[in-house]
Amino acid sequence: MHYELYYWPGIQGRGEFVRLALEEAGADYVDVAREAGGMERLMALLEGEDVARPPFAPPFLKTGDLLIGQTANILLFLGPRLGLAPEDEAGRLWVHQLQLTLADFAAEGHDVHHPVSVNLYYEDQRDEARRRAADFIESRIPKFLGYFETVLARAGGEWLVGDRVSYADLSLFQVVAWLRYAFPRAMQRLGDSHPLVGALHDRVAARPHVKAYLKSERRLSFSEDDLFRHYPELDEGA
Amino acid sequence: MHYELYYWPGIQGRGEFVRLALEEAGADYVDVAREAGGMERLMALLEGEDVARPPFAPPFLKTGDLLIGQTANILLFLGPRLGLAPEDEAGRLWVHQLQLTLADFAAEGHDVHHPVSVNLYYEDQRDEARRRAADFIESRIPKFLGYFETVLARAGGEWLVGDRVSYADLSLFQVVAWLRYAFPRAMQRLGDSHPLVGALHDRVAARPHVKAYLKSERRLSFSEDDLFRHYPELDEGA
Repeated sequence: MHYELYYWPGIQGRGEFVRLALEEAGADYVDVAREAGGMERLMALLEGEDVARPPFAPPFLKTGDLLIGQTANILLFLGPRLGLAPEDEAGRLWVHQLQLTLADFAAEGHDVHHPVSVNLYYEDQRDEARRRAADFIESRIPKFLGYFETVLARAGGEWLVGDRVSYADLSLFQVVAWLRYAFPRAMQRLGDSHPLVGALHDRVAARPHVKAYLKSERRLSFSEDDLFRHYPELDEGA
Repeated sequence: MHYELYYWPGIQGRGEFVRLALEEAGADYVDVAREAGGMERLMALLEGEDVARPPFAPPFLKTGDLLIGQTANILLFLGPRLGLAPEDEAGRLWVHQLQLTLADFAAEGHDVHHPVSVNLYYEDQRDEARRRAADFIESRIPKFLGYFETVLARAGGEWLVGDRVSYADLSLFQVVAWLRYAFPRAMQRLGDSHPLVGALHDRVAARPHVKAYLKSERRLSFSEDDLFRHYPELDEGA
């Protein structure tokens, strides 16, 4: 099966959850918008008037006749095909549930630097961002990481779901990597509080396909155009 | 099949998306937390240390041995069982994609009155809420409603997916009802701009099971404890 991933070409963003799954599985895929002429193809699917089932926003995935939008929905589709979700319905629903919780976490991480509007620059909502960041660090990061620590503990400590890696593990790795980039001081303090989550991050990063991907040019850099951003004034102790 | 819905007992909230699906289908269900002793049962599943696959937050659904969290995930499970989703995989993914987009819209609607933190009172973030509300009305409501207007138009105008009602239609009805409650002036101005969405709202409200439900005591009132809230100072022209 050949997959076309459509996502903004300059950032990790929500597309990274999909990239990590494709990379871990060694799937045959192309990151369309990073190819010559790719942005035009992305925009044609996003805004074309002849698209029967148009996506609201990137990322979306095209394979055969299917055009699938919403990150978690793409992973719902890919999971069993890439061997990154359990076979049984209960297991598939559970890994999807975890993915949706990670999506909520990532959306909150984004809104830290854009609490007022995605249409304004960060600099025009910095005061609001300071208030939101303080709450995010004090309350939301511990709540979400604490939740995943609990899930890992009850699952035996190694993977979130069963005895093998799932797409939710890859996404949790990504969120932890983002948090460490965006809030290094806060995460240093919090790090020891969630040892299973920290170990999972390292376990994912060490997987051969993921490791090779992270070193490759396909892995885009963290940046201040991304979902999680490092603004020192928003970190703990600023 | 008997279903137990667990959600906060005093509000429509995200649980309403599930209630509407169960009601439309005439399903055998109980809204647990509204029964005597129900909140204790909800908290036992939310915080119990013996829950193998704990939900992050309500709503969650229990049926047989399954405990399913995340609103859209619950509807993914219920859709085919209640006759509220297409039979084919492509159709199921598409209705789920629409539901996830509605979930994003509803989350943004909530954050209008809580742009800084869910842990603070509205009154302690009213200035930020004013800025966010202006952007939500000017930019986000038209973007989301315009998207669903397009989807309806391309699907033939009646239902979002195919030729019969789906859980996404019920959820779009709910979001429109919330918007009209929270932002009556803005929605009055915008109403005529999205005629298919408006007609879908009325079409859902007129379905016999939904109509009976909306008149019953099972339908909770709109309120300022809910996802969408009517604060006159946040509406257009305040």
